[in-house]
Amino acid sequence: MKVGFIGLGTMGGPMVLNLLQAGHEVTVHNRTRAKEEALATAGAKRAESPKAASLGAEVIVTCVSDSPDVETVVLSQNGVIQGAAAGAVVVDMSTISPKVTRRLAAALAEKQVQMLDGPVSGGSEGAQKGTLSIMLGGEAEAVAKAMPVLEAMGKTITHVGPIGSGQVTKAINQVIVAGTYLSVAEGLALGMKAGLDMSQVVKAVGGGAAGSWGLTNRSENMIKNDYPLGFRVRLHHKDLKIALEAAEELGVTVPIAAYVAQIEAGLMARGFGDEDVSAIARSIREPSGLG
Amino acid sequence: MKVGFIGLGTMGGPMVLNLLQAGHEVTVHNRTRAKEEALATAGAKRAESPKAASLGAEVIVTCVSDSPDVETVVLSQNGVIQGAAAGAVVVDMSTISPKVTRRLAAALAEKQVQMLDGPVSGGSEGAQKGTLSIMLGGEAEAVAKAMPVLEAMGKTITHVGPIGSGQVTKAINQVIVAGTYLSVAEGLALGMKAGLDMSQVVKAVGGGAAGSWGLTNRSENMIKNDYPLGFRVRLHHKDLKIALEAAEELGVTVPIAAYVAQIEAGLMARGFGDEDVSAIARSIREPSGLG
Repeated sequence: MKVGFIGLGTMGGPMVLNLLQAGHEVTVHNRTRAKEEALATAGAKRAESPKAASLGAEVIVTCVSDSPDVETVVLSQNGVIQGAAAGAVVVDMSTISPKVTRRLAAALAEKQVQMLDGPVSGGSEGAQKGTLSIMLGGEAEAVAKAMPVLEAMGKTITHVGPIGSGQVTKAINQVIVAGTYLSVAEGLALGMKAGLDMSQVVKAVGGGAAGSWGLTNRSENMIKNDYPLGFRVRLHHKDLKIALEAAEELGVTVPIAAYVAQIEAGLMARGFGDEDVSAIARSIREPSGLG
Repeated sequence: MKVGFIGLGTMGGPMVLNLLQAGHEVTVHNRTRAKEEALATAGAKRAESPKAASLGAEVIVTCVSDSPDVETVVLSQNGVIQGAAAGAVVVDMSTISPKVTRRLAAALAEKQVQMLDGPVSGGSEGAQKGTLSIMLGGEAEAVAKAMPVLEAMGKTITHVGPIGSGQVTKAINQVIVAGTYLSVAEGLALGMKAGLDMSQVVKAVGGGAAGSWGLTNRSENMIKNDYPLGFRVRLHHKDLKIALEAAEELGVTVPIAAYVAQIEAGLMARGFGDEDVSAIARSIREPSGLG
């Protein structure tokens, strides 16, 4: 298919490579234009604006940082909305506010352009291997149109509901990660302070009701007090703030998520924002952070 | 081996059946004596006191409710300590305070009786099937002596450190369960209030960093707001209080565990103490509980 792709960061770059490998014709644009070069070498066309990348595309993918970035990419004078043809599908794979998502979808709908929100989990490794988990919100018809493009980038592609639902699902993911990791950190701290054989402890509790991805894959970080990436604290914190905003709009209380967002703000202030999210264990090791 | 077994509740009863099936000679005692009858029919001898059940036994298992119960069973006038011979091993499989465990071990050591703490996870189903996870604290020599008995009751038998370590490991397990379940409840509530297809949501987030035993096995309870057993809120609350006491002694902060203990106390006050632990999701559905 003819694909326009805007946003060539840690995630977007490898995703474009997978699209090219699957035989799609991809036109790319990035705010820092130099990032287009490697992809041009791999067979992508370059475009000077989001509008130009959207001209003639059947599917247009946006993969940038936060709500304001997507708003600029889609709605500005040289934005996607100026280039996308009636019948095209815009898939925003950034993690942003579901409220902003619905606003963008409404603007695009006026031009007969359909929008899907498709935030991902699986990190840069998943982007490289084409094994991302993609959480989709939008109309089933648009999902069907975009599917060949999505399948080139992700393995688990789940349509969870109408526009904005993908973002709510991503928020759910990050809320659960927050509390799961922190409770693992609390448990492990007890064992470490008591002088237990921690690899045996992880083995003993990991097979039952206390088992989780976080316990299996992040307890070593917490035990060593060393937090290589992974997924950055500052990005998880951005996502949790989106989740907290969505929770307030929906009228849902998420006390643990709010608490973890506070911990992460503290970590960022102390210079730990670029560590893996499992660094929230620092709040159990060093409760006040006042030194 | 010759085994004395004290405490024939939901867990102890089926554990004795597995010991008999494995060919051990078991003498049983229970405070409510009538519970001995079914086991006598299955081949166990009955004893009129913990002391009598301990006479001549190589391994003595205690499986009762809480710290004071174990203290009574072991230290009272007709207690295990009066009947156990030098060289015998006492295995306490109750979930109790690690501090009390160490005190009991010291008292038994004066009579050349070794003690292990071996709390379990896996519930009544694990007790019946002989697939319990047993978390052991104590001397390696005593572990080796008791192993034929332990292997008849459990599948994953992990020696985590010196006396009391099994109880600390059980505390770790319950602390992690607390926060994991509550964060799953927070996440799911967002999706339910947003009207998402929840089975699709669980599928979308369950395979990645948000995945856990609780999400896989307890999200249905939380979505239906119906909490069949499982493991009772009031028992998990008892275990969390042990964990909080151990945390304070060790100098470890466990804020999420403390918060969940508060939620559970509220659930018990509202008559939900005999529901499954996943009922902590009620605190997200009905935050104040004031009606």
